[in-house]
Amino acid sequence: MMKVGIIGAGRIGKVHAKNISMFVPEIEIKTIADPFMNGQTEEFAKKCGIPNVTKDANDILNDPEIDAVLICSSTDTHSKYIIEAAKAGKHIFCEKPIDYDLKKVHEAIDAAKNAGVKLQIGFCRRFDHNHHAVYQMVRDGKVGKVNIIKISSRDPEPPPIAYVKVSGGIFYDMMIHDFDMARFLAGSEVTEVNAVGSVLVDPEIGAAGDVDTAVVTLKFENGAIGIIDNSRKAVYGYDQRVEVFGSEGCARNENDIPNTAVLSNESGTSYENPYKIMWDRYTGAFVAEIQAFVDAIVNDKETPVTGMDGLYPVLMAAAATKSLKEGRPIKISEVE
Amino acid sequence: MMKVGIIGAGRIGKVHAKNISMFVPEIEIKTIADPFMNGQTEEFAKKCGIPNVTKDANDILNDPEIDAVLICSSTDTHSKYIIEAAKAGKHIFCEKPIDYDLKKVHEAIDAAKNAGVKLQIGFCRRFDHNHHAVYQMVRDGKVGKVNIIKISSRDPEPPPIAYVKVSGGIFYDMMIHDFDMARFLAGSEVTEVNAVGSVLVDPEIGAAGDVDTAVVTLKFENGAIGIIDNSRKAVYGYDQRVEVFGSEGCARNENDIPNTAVLSNESGTSYENPYKIMWDRYTGAFVAEIQAFVDAIVNDKETPVTGMDGLYPVLMAAAATKSLKEGRPIKISEVE
Amino acid sequence: MMKVGIIGAGRIGKVHAKNISMFVPEIEIKTIADPFMNGQTEEFAKKCGIPNVTKDANDILNDPEIDAVLICSSTDTHSKYIIEAAKAGKHIFCEKPIDYDLKKVHEAIDAAKNAGVKLQIGFCRRFDHNHHAVYQMVRDGKVGKVNIIKISSRDPEPPPIAYVKVSGGIFYDMMIHDFDMARFLAGSEVTEVNAVGSVLVDPEIGAAGDVDTAVVTLKFENGAIGIIDNSRKAVYGYDQRVEVFGSEGCARNENDIPNTAVLSNESGTSYENPYKIMWDRYTGAFVAEIQAFVDAIVNDKETPVTGMDGLYPVLMAAAATKSLKEGRPIKISEVE
Amino acid sequence: MMKVGIIGAGRIGKVHAKNISMFVPEIEIKTIADPFMNGQTEEFAKKCGIPNVTKDANDILNDPEIDAVLICSSTDTHSKYIIEAAKAGKHIFCEKPIDYDLKKVHEAIDAAKNAGVKLQIGFCRRFDHNHHAVYQMVRDGKVGKVNIIKISSRDPEPPPIAYVKVSGGIFYDMMIHDFDMARFLAGSEVTEVNAVGSVLVDPEIGAAGDVDTAVVTLKFENGAIGIIDNSRKAVYGYDQRVEVFGSEGCARNENDIPNTAVLSNESGTSYENPYKIMWDRYTGAFVAEIQAFVDAIVNDKETPVTGMDGLYPVLMAAAATKSLKEGRPIKISEVE
Repeated sequence: MMKVGIIGAGRIGKVHAKNISMFVPEIEIKTIADPFMNGQTEEFAKKCGIPNVTKDANDILNDPEIDAVLICSSTDTHSKYIIEAAKAGKHIFCEKPIDYDLKKVHEAIDAAKNAGVKLQIGFCRRFDHNHHAVYQMVRDGKVGKVNIIKISSRDPEPPPIAYVKVSGGIFYDMMIHDFDMARFLAGSEVTEVNAVGSVLVDPEIGAAGDVDTAVVTLKFENGAIGIIDNSRKAVYGYDQRVEVFGSEGCARNENDIPNTAVLSNESGTSYENPYKIMWDRYTGAFVAEIQAFVDAIVNDKETPVTGMDGLYPVLMAAAATKSLKEGRPIKISEVE
Repeated sequence: MMKVGIIGAGRIGKVHAKNISMFVPEIEIKTIADPFMNGQTEEFAKKCGIPNVTKDANDILNDPEIDAVLICSSTDTHSKYIIEAAKAGKHIFCEKPIDYDLKKVHEAIDAAKNAGVKLQIGFCRRFDHNHHAVYQMVRDGKVGKVNIIKISSRDPEPPPIAYVKVSGGIFYDMMIHDFDMARFLAGSEVTEVNAVGSVLVDPEIGAAGDVDTAVVTLKFENGAIGIIDNSRKAVYGYDQRVEVFGSEGCARNENDIPNTAVLSNESGTSYENPYKIMWDRYTGAFVAEIQAFVDAIVNDKETPVTGMDGLYPVLMAAAATKSLKEGRPIKISEVE
Repeated sequence: MMKVGIIGAGRIGKVHAKNISMFVPEIEIKTIADPFMNGQTEEFAKKCGIPNVTKDANDILNDPEIDAVLICSSTDTHSKYIIEAAKAGKHIFCEKPIDYDLKKVHEAIDAAKNAGVKLQIGFCRRFDHNHHAVYQMVRDGKVGKVNIIKISSRDPEPPPIAYVKVSGGIFYDMMIHDFDMARFLAGSEVTEVNAVGSVLVDPEIGAAGDVDTAVVTLKFENGAIGIIDNSRKAVYGYDQRVEVFGSEGCARNENDIPNTAVLSNESGTSYENPYKIMWDRYTGAFVAEIQAFVDAIVNDKETPVTGMDGLYPVLMAAAATKSLKEGRPIKISEVE
Repeated sequence: MMKVGIIGAGRIGKVHAKNISMFVPEIEIKTIADPFMNGQTEEFAKKCGIPNVTKDANDILNDPEIDAVLICSSTDTHSKYIIEAAKAGKHIFCEKPIDYDLKKVHEAIDAAKNAGVKLQIGFCRRFDHNHHAVYQMVRDGKVGKVNIIKISSRDPEPPPIAYVKVSGGIFYDMMIHDFDMARFLAGSEVTEVNAVGSVLVDPEIGAAGDVDTAVVTLKFENGAIGIIDNSRKAVYGYDQRVEVFGSEGCARNENDIPNTAVLSNESGTSYENPYKIMWDRYTGAFVAEIQAFVDAIVNDKETPVTGMDGLYPVLMAAAATKSLKEGRPIKISEVE
């Protein structure tokens, strides 16, 4: 039985803890660490059957019984913990992004590589049933050569302004998932990015130096073209759809909805909106990514989202940020 | 913390045990009993955190610490265990049907009533998200007065012939769920049943004295008309759809499918079939019915599927069986 | 250029006249006859390029230049005109039903047969793009052996009570289309009919001796089972759907809607209802049936809806009427 | 009865002639002119009830009986005929685009303005039922303030290479429709265009100096952002979808398909692809635009697609062409 430690007991740390306790019987969470550990978190840990709680991540990093760590702390600590965990010989699952500083990203990736430990980045959407089904169609050649990739990704509500101010901007904090999805679906690297953005949802987001509506076009090495649109606010729910158009067909998906009931009355025919909450939408994806991490360790395989997969979306976010600022397309080579 | 015992560790008993251990933290399974208890089942119980396993249901019935029982044993033992559990003052969740013998059904219902314990019958489909959404639309008056109810219910594969021989026939073993659904949606009692049936899937089913394709029309007290169609074999999966047509509109649902991906290529546009497996289709429903049972006990409410709800579908199955045999509509009053 | 005459310039006669003038250039309408011919109808005829208008159908029947007649007069005159047209050696397209009197139906069919003229009955729905697509799937073996046929057919508004009183009842006037559709889809004859009916839409319909909500189950010779549901009032539009379930799959269709636009807002996701008007829904079907009639004449083929196809739905309506009255299933042989 | 002349009896001229003869009884086509007039076209004109055929457009322009002209000749003659028709005091319906030379476009618009005649440009898609339904939702405020507009427009087959060489390129010949649609839906002018393009369908298109796959992002004056994707080849049919996302909701449409039949079998569930042929897809739109033109004349209203509506898409095409060439966003002001 593999033993893991979780660093960070915030929202995402708790999601992983609960999922592992319910759905991943192959691993056992020995310790959960958080500098703000309190009674409530201890109670939570108990419910999940986690025997040890601590304020000090070193209790995990220095524990020889622990085989792997899940890094769910704040982004600014990711690379540090990756490097330390790698040194301690532990396999690493790290939430996205590794860091916004490309030098730190490279150091973290190198550390894991040199230590020979597995490193998986938490791009959970790759494991979503709907996105993965489109991916599988593409990989199975069902759309032929990929020509156009379209991704719509819209949140039900903007985050608090306080968060917007420190998030690094819409490209780093929101579209980074879509950058990853674009590469995942295309099977090719992005060479150039052009970003357009507006403040249409909330002027305060503009005042904080960010945009809330953004469209990015991507050029891929293989000639394919990508389009991503983001909005901080879709009143009808969490809108997440992808489309891959190719020489032999087109694969696309729709949002999940809570139920399939349809009502027809005098005013028209209607059905329910997509989920409003990310955790409801990607429930299965969070479980599946941990299962894939365990599988990579147990069967000594490459993880399905490598350190380099963590690097490229950051490069794309850097390019998009620069493109929006300068009003021109930016080559990835300009930001590497 | 309420303590329960599970009588019967077959397929459905295990489903409830696992669901409770994962999703119903409000109750604790103290004991699981099965006359065929073996090492494998013991292992399963351990994984679910059930401390006691036994071959003797009396270890549950006589345990003063246990507040409620889940009766998941074979149908012929249901009424007996209901009566015994009622005498022991335990709340009862019993898998459907209570019995095929109406006298026994009445005795069981009376026993629970006299003992003042809760009795809930396991018609899980009432708790399915898609069916419940249609039900809610109907109850909210969104379709107005109910005029027509249509239920399609088709299995992906016929059961083994050995089972067909003892199951009581398609009306008792398969359509009984739809009889319950029809009453649930109509909010009115059925007064007359007309059954038509054919052997179209497998001649062996005919040789066993049953039909494999059946259509039943229902007359409700309030004038509404119901239609149920059953087939033992739908090659495209487990097909479960309902439709309620009324004076102000029409509510209907579609099957859940594993993902929303759609592929368009030269030959057409296609998507995935519904689930093939009942347990995949009704996962949430099995959890929700137990949560409702707990809620009824904790908040001292009527259970959402009462003993009488267990009785009526059996009456309808009896009427349908007689109707098919005699080739004429049968009033419920003829079989009571 | 084939010349035709139209007997009857009511609603359906005008539809055919307009359609032929617009979409069937292969034929020329020489004369239109109606006992109530007036200035307005003359104006209409002129717009359609019909040179002759008359009050006397004999001007058509006795015109040696006219090759074929469309009988669009009131039902009670159908068989008479069929017989006369047959005697005059003219091919015949006759609106449904031939008659409610089975003797007259047989006489009409025999007259056409003996005269060696083509006879096609106006069951237009066979030519509808959606129903025909399901039919074609069934004929191409895509659903395998047919096991269950389901037809929903609901009108947006009941007809005037005056009409209800003389229409022959819901089975003759409304469900007759569905009886034809059931045979068309099944490729097998009906042997027994069981009808259930209620007055749920308008008590005046009940007072007029009819029901407004009806469900009929059908047994087919090949063991397949059919279900038809009719309502005189669906507030959301003209609801016309069929489903054929078989050993290898299930083919079904949905209603046409005026456009594909979908709106998602805070209250849900909605789209437009089906058409409210039969003529909008079956526009193409009315054209296609005339084209098929022309094709049968020009290429000397059997018409796609023969006299016998006109007879059977009347038998089914008779059986359904008797079944509803007597509260028992009626064999077709009981009404022949 | 208004009399019109049609200049140009090629594909689109014939479509208008046939549509008017069948569906627009308010107007009468007196003359059709084409320099390549031959027996076949004469035969066609006869069938449409057009009394006069000629090789000389002046027979229309100089005919005092003719109130309006439809200019369906080759693009290079559009502006010339607009100017001449305006001088002759005739209302003008002109196929898109007016010209690729902005000077000529302005001259044509001015000529019509000065002559006080109506000028309508043939952007037929505005009149398509699906696109118009989305437009109507937007205009009715159902999506609130427009934030993002997405248009997918993909042809089933590339045009002949000979045509590609003279068409002016994908932005002038194909995306020009989508540029118009974007403005139509946004209700705001485009200020900047960024184009990305690839040769992914046929290298010969690249050899001819064009791209076959193109994505353009648009900035609108009001801050909204637009995305258009074009491909010369979609194997599954003519793919035409729009989506408007705003502060209060999202309106989008799907393609029309030939019928609604759906087949579920062991391999999945499938339905038909969209139409392959533009004329099938936009049948109703071609009729509706002529009806709107007639309505503008008869009721002395502004035409729904004015000369300026003809100008802007040409500006956008010019900007997109320049953007693709120079690899940077181009402001509309740079090409005016």
